[in-house]
Amino acid sequence: MRAVVKPAPGPGLALVDVPTPRPGRGEVLIEVKASSICGTDLHIRNWDPWAADRVVPPRVIGHETCGVVIAHGEGVADPPLGSLVSVESHVVCGVCVLCRTGRGHLCEQTSIFGVHRDGVFAEYVAAPAVNCWPDPPGMPYSIASLQENFGNAVHTASTPAVAGRKVLVTGCGPVGVMAIAAVRALGARTVLASDISEYRLNLARAMGAAATFNPAREDLYAGVMAATDGDGVDVLLEMSGVAAAADQGFRLLRPGGEAALLGLFSRPIEFDFDNRIVFKGVTVHGIVGRRLWATWYQMRAMLRSRAVDLTPMVTHRFALDDFEAAFALMASGQCGKVVMFPNPADADGPLTTP
Amino acid sequence: MRAVVKPAPGPGLALVDVPTPRPGRGEVLIEVKASSICGTDLHIRNWDPWAADRVVPPRVIGHETCGVVIAHGEGVADPPLGSLVSVESHVVCGVCVLCRTGRGHLCEQTSIFGVHRDGVFAEYVAAPAVNCWPDPPGMPYSIASLQENFGNAVHTASTPAVAGRKVLVTGCGPVGVMAIAAVRALGARTVLASDISEYRLNLARAMGAAATFNPAREDLYAGVMAATDGDGVDVLLEMSGVAAAADQGFRLLRPGGEAALLGLFSRPIEFDFDNRIVFKGVTVHGIVGRRLWATWYQMRAMLRSRAVDLTPMVTHRFALDDFEAAFALMASGQCGKVVMFPNPADADGPLTTP
Amino acid sequence: MRAVVKPAPGPGLALVDVPTPRPGRGEVLIEVKASSICGTDLHIRNWDPWAADRVVPPRVIGHETCGVVIAHGEGVADPPLGSLVSVESHVVCGVCVLCRTGRGHLCEQTSIFGVHRDGVFAEYVAAPAVNCWPDPPGMPYSIASLQENFGNAVHTASTPAVAGRKVLVTGCGPVGVMAIAAVRALGARTVLASDISEYRLNLARAMGAAATFNPAREDLYAGVMAATDGDGVDVLLEMSGVAAAADQGFRLLRPGGEAALLGLFSRPIEFDFDNRIVFKGVTVHGIVGRRLWATWYQMRAMLRSRAVDLTPMVTHRFALDDFEAAFALMASGQCGKVVMFPNPADADGPLTTP
Amino acid sequence: MRAVVKPAPGPGLALVDVPTPRPGRGEVLIEVKASSICGTDLHIRNWDPWAADRVVPPRVIGHETCGVVIAHGEGVADPPLGSLVSVESHVVCGVCVLCRTGRGHLCEQTSIFGVHRDGVFAEYVAAPAVNCWPDPPGMPYSIASLQENFGNAVHTASTPAVAGRKVLVTGCGPVGVMAIAAVRALGARTVLASDISEYRLNLARAMGAAATFNPAREDLYAGVMAATDGDGVDVLLEMSGVAAAADQGFRLLRPGGEAALLGLFSRPIEFDFDNRIVFKGVTVHGIVGRRLWATWYQMRAMLRSRAVDLTPMVTHRFALDDFEAAFALMASGQCGKVVMFPNPADADGPLTTP
Repeated sequence: MRAVVKPAPGPGLALVDVPTPRPGRGEVLIEVKASSICGTDLHIRNWDPWAADRVVPPRVIGHETCGVVIAHGEGVADPPLGSLVSVESHVVCGVCVLCRTGRGHLCEQTSIFGVHRDGVFAEYVAAPAVNCWPDPPGMPYSIASLQENFGNAVHTASTPAVAGRKVLVTGCGPVGVMAIAAVRALGARTVLASDISEYRLNLARAMGAAATFNPAREDLYAGVMAATDGDGVDVLLEMSGVAAAADQGFRLLRPGGEAALLGLFSRPIEFDFDNRIVFKGVTVHGIVGRRLWATWYQMRAMLRSRAVDLTPMVTHRFALDDFEAAFALMASGQCGKVVMFPNPADADGPLTTP
Repeated sequence: MRAVVKPAPGPGLALVDVPTPRPGRGEVLIEVKASSICGTDLHIRNWDPWAADRVVPPRVIGHETCGVVIAHGEGVADPPLGSLVSVESHVVCGVCVLCRTGRGHLCEQTSIFGVHRDGVFAEYVAAPAVNCWPDPPGMPYSIASLQENFGNAVHTASTPAVAGRKVLVTGCGPVGVMAIAAVRALGARTVLASDISEYRLNLARAMGAAATFNPAREDLYAGVMAATDGDGVDVLLEMSGVAAAADQGFRLLRPGGEAALLGLFSRPIEFDFDNRIVFKGVTVHGIVGRRLWATWYQMRAMLRSRAVDLTPMVTHRFALDDFEAAFALMASGQCGKVVMFPNPADADGPLTTP
Repeated sequence: MRAVVKPAPGPGLALVDVPTPRPGRGEVLIEVKASSICGTDLHIRNWDPWAADRVVPPRVIGHETCGVVIAHGEGVADPPLGSLVSVESHVVCGVCVLCRTGRGHLCEQTSIFGVHRDGVFAEYVAAPAVNCWPDPPGMPYSIASLQENFGNAVHTASTPAVAGRKVLVTGCGPVGVMAIAAVRALGARTVLASDISEYRLNLARAMGAAATFNPAREDLYAGVMAATDGDGVDVLLEMSGVAAAADQGFRLLRPGGEAALLGLFSRPIEFDFDNRIVFKGVTVHGIVGRRLWATWYQMRAMLRSRAVDLTPMVTHRFALDDFEAAFALMASGQCGKVVMFPNPADADGPLTTP
Repeated sequence: MRAVVKPAPGPGLALVDVPTPRPGRGEVLIEVKASSICGTDLHIRNWDPWAADRVVPPRVIGHETCGVVIAHGEGVADPPLGSLVSVESHVVCGVCVLCRTGRGHLCEQTSIFGVHRDGVFAEYVAAPAVNCWPDPPGMPYSIASLQENFGNAVHTASTPAVAGRKVLVTGCGPVGVMAIAAVRALGARTVLASDISEYRLNLARAMGAAATFNPAREDLYAGVMAATDGDGVDVLLEMSGVAAAADQGFRLLRPGGEAALLGLFSRPIEFDFDNRIVFKGVTVHGIVGRRLWATWYQMRAMLRSRAVDLTPMVTHRFALDDFEAAFALMASGQCGKVVMFPNPADADGPLTTP
């Protein structure tokens, strides 16, 4: 089958022919319908230290996907053949204390598609049956694929208490933007957002931000204070991984507020714990992955009740064969989610051609 | 009356005669029976930047105390004359959103005894009636006085879930040591502690630490890992204000763990959010003051049920007139709580004479 | 001034002249702009056992109101003269363990307007300054008045976790209907409702119920099961005070679900704890009053963000002089909230004339 | 092998020879070392309606046990052969929304040993590997066996917040008595208990109750009020299944208190929701089984830290062949836990001979 692989240590990716995987015990074989690109995939393409520490080439990459179950490995009866599924990308051990007490998303044995095991930018992928999330028939493939990423947003948005609260989202990459939609669905009083990309601030407003701020052009602190009658915000969702944004975000947080951190800084940063956290009695939540499986049920509720409409998030579609162009667009920041289709006939909207 | 005051900007304190305060509307006049020294008082004596920013001399200092109510200001009927009370040192506004939603300890209008208003290292103090906590008759004055400080420990210890968990306390100043006793009373499975003072590690063990570590002499990380079968700890109470201790504490924290931060670093520090908080899904709680008034009720329960015995904490007693010696001992770290008595006849144990 | 009073034990009310109250220490005098009728007022009119146990005639009745502050008692500076305020009807002691630990709504010394002290169906009322909630200038008086009652709904709706969940509201009196709007604002996936009044089921749908059921005409259990794909509901809000409704509601509750009980049954009822609560691991919350003051802040957030629009709730307006007709309508159930105006010129909509 | 079975519908049990089970896929074969008798086993022996509805004879009964793993079914590697394990008696589906969101103890497909599938009052039992809880080598078999039942107590005790609180336990059967020990380990301020058996009240005091009450001889309400300075209790653990006890327990509960219900009433009861729950703002938790697997980890922490010592609970040991005498003793109530040993040589204390 065709697959996008990291062929060897170093920058770059290649579309190559690899053997079609066979589903092992407890696994299913999925015919991939759509796969979406995550920031992590860019790190792997660029071969930054995070990627070099974790990925052993050759490796099929990609971890956001949906497809149809076409074969069952031994001992598997469910989900049924022919059903559309999305894939939870974190394969966990199931037996450690974290897995056995409702915190499997923190399992220390986690194996991630496209990082530790072959991924989804391919025509087929083998996945544990328990990692398959049944989608309703007729769900657009692009939406079904990006649910994994939406799950990061929902996990972040639902960890602090946001109902009736003023929320600031620093960082409007796709997860940040989807978090805006999620906090609104959860009853936030207002959502403000910041980023240095005007494209993404536009998308943020389209997904529900009441006001947006570009720190490259204006004073974020002054802007948010003005927009909140001088109060600041009750909740901070830090999705940027930028030290200055985090500092301003915490400065804008009211005493007793809550912050959820999903953004990665890639290195230690300078931080004023006394004034940003201790004196204000702030609570901070580190966020990784999706709660297994509470987050998926939350997503289902948001999507089926139409509290969240992810349609505007899918800004570009590509044939998988055009992955280079898709990655280049993703790297430019001039996009929301970029979705690729191994079979262009499966595309649920017009394809961009390079 | 005699009082220990900060007479003018700059280091040093003085015992001087000042007018006895008169209780205003809603206040009571308290005859001080005992007052204990807090680390904050050392900062004010030394006139560090924190103190210089907040204290306007001349100011009577001190904020941990107990005494007998001897006069009522206008509109006050309770607590009754003659009753023994401890004093909550944070005077809050009562009407802001924080005060009105159970988070008065974070009130932005907080006025603190011995910092923003005249304090308790004196023969008498006027305090709002609502800040008086009734003590049982016969409670030793030294214990009654240090409850305010014990409240910091109880607030810190009770914010994360500690029952059945392995806990590390970094920093064994008096609050850290009392937090050890508090987490044990709350059902912690085991409590480990670190400090660079052997005196305080001894006290930590006397108050319930299962094992202690001196990072000046041994590898804290290795020691805690060995003591926890390689698991690390579920909860970190950071009471040291030392960046290296905080970093090691967070490194020792298990995925999904909780940290409570009471220690102040006095400046921004370098911190690895990605590996210490985000990837591990850790929750961090900034802690300040005591929850008004939940923490006081928790203290009462711990003391009356004898789940905590604070007697070993009171290592030294001084006459108030010997405050210089008391402060010098406190600065040396060779002590637990140091309690001063305006009237030496009120001392509930042998006085140390300089 | 004119006031609606319970003149003597027994059924009935009378509009009489009574002395205008004078604000005591800590109180303000309010010129009443609007007052709304609560089910409790009907109980007092009818002199049922609950009322006979609590109300000592002669008593001005009524507890939902808004008005303008026109005089300050001693020691009061806030809210300023001329400001529009709504009134929290529960006057609490402020010093008991419940008041001091964020549960003042459960204070055992609670004194309620129109029950234990003179109420608001009058031209003027004296109220503690701390019971006054500032309203934005221009808020319609009818909405400002019924906030007290909306607070019961918000308290009930926000006690269980409703975001993303399927909710059943049994009982569509005004509080039940407002609770429908509140759970939707809090992100519920869907809200179902039941009542035996078609008028109120219409109102329930107008305020956001996805489907409604009339147990007098159809099988509530079958209807809700059909509407939830056979799952039942995650949350029950019991607002009816009808034993059969409560039983069906709990039967429809899924394992692990939550129920909030606001409705009063007026007597012990038969209840199957084993099957309705224990085996299903259900959590039940008794609800009374409004959380002081968290519920008021939640209301403010819902109303200012327009997440909830209470306009459809105000179905009828009367001059206070026509209170008999207003009460008769309220007793008929053919209405939402019924609001009375001491000065007909203050009415924010057309008055109903008897 | 020998096993105690319900041979046919109707009262009574029989010790008979049945085929030794073979472990299926995912299962292990356990050589039973000890099994303890639960109240449920008495219901099955007596063939009450609950049992008649669920048990299909012939059925090996019993569900509390420990033993040594002696064979692995297909696909099983863990726990290792030769290891001592206790058995979680609830076999859950693992795939429903409850199982997948941390509430597997409420799984609607639960199959219970000795009820829906062959049980543990036998020489051998086959159990899913995931239901095996590894015990430390050297743990007394009687303690290892009764952990399942201790888990009910820990689940009940840890659901309300008990630290620093006054707790009343109504019903001192073995689970009630073990709950007393658990709430003390969790930091309760004081624990009071009631039962009509003096034997069990003695055991309750031995396990940590500060005071006990026998409603057959004294006024429970008056006794508890006297023991709590007229305050009543903050937490009620209802373990009796007696309507009058529940009513008194709720009456003694303070406003804002919490109740956990484990006792079964076997039929609907009369209950005053208005005064017992709604007006007081009480929260009620239905409790069933053990949280999978949080409760087991909590037990491990309590036992290893010696916060709880279950030794006094094991009041009687019998050879399995003497099951009739063991059951008769259990029915008399003159005992704590009664443990049976298929091989008398495995007994960890003196055997009672009929």
